[in-house]
Amino acid sequence: MNVQEAIQSFHALQSKLSAYHHAMSLIYYDGATTAPKGTAPNRAHALAILSEETYKMSTSQETVSMLEFLDAHKDELTPNDARAVYLALKDIKEMKKIPMDEYIAYEELLVEADDVWHKAKEESNFELFCPVLERIFETTIRHAGYCAPDKHPYNYCLDKYEGGLTMEKCDEFFAALKSKIIPLIKKISQREQVSDECIKGDFDEPSQEKFSYELMKAMGIDLDHCGLGTTEHPFTTSIGSHHDVRITTNYERSNLSYSMFSVIHEGGHALYDMNSADELAYTFLDGGVSMGIHESQSRFYENLLGRSREFINYIFPKVQECFPQLEGYTAEDMYRAVNLVTPSLIRTEADEVTYCLHVMIRYELEKRVVGGELAVKDLPAEWNRLYKEYLGVDVPDDKHGVLQDSHWSGGGIGYFPSYALGSAYGAHLLHKMKETVDVEKCLSEGNFAPINEWNREHIWKFGCAKEPDVLLCEALGEEFDPAYYTEYLEKKYSEIYGL
Amino acid sequence: MNVQEAIQSFHALQSKLSAYHHAMSLIYYDGATTAPKGTAPNRAHALAILSEETYKMSTSQETVSMLEFLDAHKDELTPNDARAVYLALKDIKEMKKIPMDEYIAYEELLVEADDVWHKAKEESNFELFCPVLERIFETTIRHAGYCAPDKHPYNYCLDKYEGGLTMEKCDEFFAALKSKIIPLIKKISQREQVSDECIKGDFDEPSQEKFSYELMKAMGIDLDHCGLGTTEHPFTTSIGSHHDVRITTNYERSNLSYSMFSVIHEGGHALYDMNSADELAYTFLDGGVSMGIHESQSRFYENLLGRSREFINYIFPKVQECFPQLEGYTAEDMYRAVNLVTPSLIRTEADEVTYCLHVMIRYELEKRVVGGELAVKDLPAEWNRLYKEYLGVDVPDDKHGVLQDSHWSGGGIGYFPSYALGSAYGAHLLHKMKETVDVEKCLSEGNFAPINEWNREHIWKFGCAKEPDVLLCEALGEEFDPAYYTEYLEKKYSEIYGL
Repeated sequence: MNVQEAIQSFHALQSKLSAYHHAMSLIYYDGATTAPKGTAPNRAHALAILSEETYKMSTSQETVSMLEFLDAHKDELTPNDARAVYLALKDIKEMKKIPMDEYIAYEELLVEADDVWHKAKEESNFELFCPVLERIFETTIRHAGYCAPDKHPYNYCLDKYEGGLTMEKCDEFFAALKSKIIPLIKKISQREQVSDECIKGDFDEPSQEKFSYELMKAMGIDLDHCGLGTTEHPFTTSIGSHHDVRITTNYERSNLSYSMFSVIHEGGHALYDMNSADELAYTFLDGGVSMGIHESQSRFYENLLGRSREFINYIFPKVQECFPQLEGYTAEDMYRAVNLVTPSLIRTEADEVTYCLHVMIRYELEKRVVGGELAVKDLPAEWNRLYKEYLGVDVPDDKHGVLQDSHWSGGGIGYFPSYALGSAYGAHLLHKMKETVDVEKCLSEGNFAPINEWNREHIWKFGCAKEPDVLLCEALGEEFDPAYYTEYLEKKYSEIYGL
Repeated sequence: MNVQEAIQSFHALQSKLSAYHHAMSLIYYDGATTAPKGTAPNRAHALAILSEETYKMSTSQETVSMLEFLDAHKDELTPNDARAVYLALKDIKEMKKIPMDEYIAYEELLVEADDVWHKAKEESNFELFCPVLERIFETTIRHAGYCAPDKHPYNYCLDKYEGGLTMEKCDEFFAALKSKIIPLIKKISQREQVSDECIKGDFDEPSQEKFSYELMKAMGIDLDHCGLGTTEHPFTTSIGSHHDVRITTNYERSNLSYSMFSVIHEGGHALYDMNSADELAYTFLDGGVSMGIHESQSRFYENLLGRSREFINYIFPKVQECFPQLEGYTAEDMYRAVNLVTPSLIRTEADEVTYCLHVMIRYELEKRVVGGELAVKDLPAEWNRLYKEYLGVDVPDDKHGVLQDSHWSGGGIGYFPSYALGSAYGAHLLHKMKETVDVEKCLSEGNFAPINEWNREHIWKFGCAKEPDVLLCEALGEEFDPAYYTEYLEKKYSEIYGL
């Protein structure tokens, strides 16, 4: 084997695996959006086989030898090829630690769990979900034992979504947020509440869907390569490469802002995924590098841009066009309505200020379950207790409590902190972007091109070509500092609430 | 290798291939229903790889040896296993005659063609479609040369969709139809035309969609395992097994009957596919056996049941519920409207009497292109000439002419005769069913269970376990005779038109 041949085999392997990922992502997407509801076992059958094939192909002796050979010759490779080899070897080493039958069984479990979670949420019945969730936590802990026997299993979970993240770092980060956010919430609660009347009412689904496309167009999302679906829980997925991305939303008839900010949030993920450099398509470097960076983009668009006065001023005429019932309200009414700060039950509907508390509750609970200090069956009671303690709200039922998110049913244990990290990354990135881009002017004019261009050049185009901390540090030109985020929140909400 | 081991490997192979078919059918279905419109090349990439894998797996020396070993021991196999081995060997022998790179290139061509056909139809621009269609015909002829060098290439095409069908049989069959249908059309044209006023108007899509589900429920289709989508051209596909079937329709705002009968037609296909015996799932015997038998079921539900006076009487209150604008009309008005006989442009909208002439035109054209007597570029002119000759209508543009059907862009050359054959099979099957089932009574009461049960026991449950001619002959208890079909048409339309 010479380096040239090995590189060709490696490119062929990446291309082949991308076809399997195309198939598997589409089967998941279809299951969440379109598939008839009795078809989960049929999907599980196909996914079990396709993931077995993927596993075999990725971990075969032939593959490992090729990768090790290439790794030994990394100086002769392009930087992208060398990075892809490094990531592949890292993944394979981890995958090989998990016995193949367990790997496949876990894929099947997740299909089942998705189905059971939907039913359980619909019926607000945690008992239905509990046995499946127990198996998910057990499997996660077992995988942590195989892959990182020296680590606390929850550190293994955190590292999966944000390379290098640990409980220590999280604790420190959350403490920094808490020290600023809790006093801010307290001050806000003493002021007169702003009105969110204008975004409440009856907003029919076809009009909301039409508005969703207006938002996607305004954000500069290429609709020829990005679809919009409806699911219980909004998400974004790539189908095989960055040339086909799908976002989903969920329409709430009584609240205009729910789907509006879901679409902008998922649209941020989509922009990131869709704008990998073209040469990264069908390679391991295609798409976003970590969940923290991913959420930095989604929450950047959702909040820093989407909930800004300038953007609301720009979009308000389109809002009125889609929803004539808003006649009589002003853009300023809407700006205040979408920035109302109030402790609430649902994370995805939470305002910017209280949002991180929702994340911290999930972080606390996951940490304790994975650490063996809390039983899965006790999650609802603990969830409800922490919501009372952190946010002062009473959880009426599990549908509006522990069953609200799809992450756990999808195996995403350790994912939640990315939302808070991403939010804070985003504020620092915005600060940096403003050195060269007149963001307010762009938003006022609905001209996202310069903003998207900055993100493309500093974040998106690299795909997974850099480690997340390196990518972030280079984009920022300095070390990440969460103070930009808390300062942003204090400044914005002091103005709105007259603190 | 012993028989037991070989059988286990064979079952595993069938199960594995069903997962690949799951993936590929879903990629096609997604492309037709949901995928963003710029994503065809991305789909082509995945399909090329997955079809290459399927090809390799199906035709590997290991597979062939296993199948030949099992075939040599067929007396020790269950009848279903022996049949699956026979079908697999037949397919593989054919597949292996086509070089792998051509096989893969053809899969890619079909993805491209689907995309180009959509655009061409939208723009009514045959020139756009012509080069791709030329390549499809060329490939078909080349494949015929590889697979059946001794046959006329069009006989190879016909045999693909209905085993044993030849041009001679088709010519004879169409001549028998023509001799009865042409005089019938002539007699009808001399009578006063019935009114179809009640099905014309403005029927919004959400109401039509709601009505589609009413129809599916009325037909006894299990909605937990059958989905409904919207596409340019209605079709039915299984996703991996008979446990997940999707039908599609296309809503025409100005005409209630277009989607209504598309849904019933595709619903007939779906019932057939969904009701293979459960033990056939994930084997080569799952799903319908030939396109002729498939169309016998779809056109049975669409016309023999769906356009019957009894069914229209039953469904009419639901029609009025979904479309209040029909107040003032009677079920009899609707019965006459959906049975109006008039020469027209679009096959899928044609009435039962003129329908077969649309099929004959396509048959004539395909036969001549495949036989080298007609150039693809001359298809539009010949299409228009034959529509004038057979149906007396002037084709205004290619969208309403040669570009109307999706079959050719999907490689389905030789498929069209199945529609006419299926229609005639259906009439004979109905005659036989009436010996034991009071079909009129069932339809009047909207009780499809006894009808579906007869079809399940005589047709559906067998999947591909019998050859189509054997299946049909056993269900009928005699040789198939097209006279039942022409008699049915004469009787029904003589009553409607008072001949």
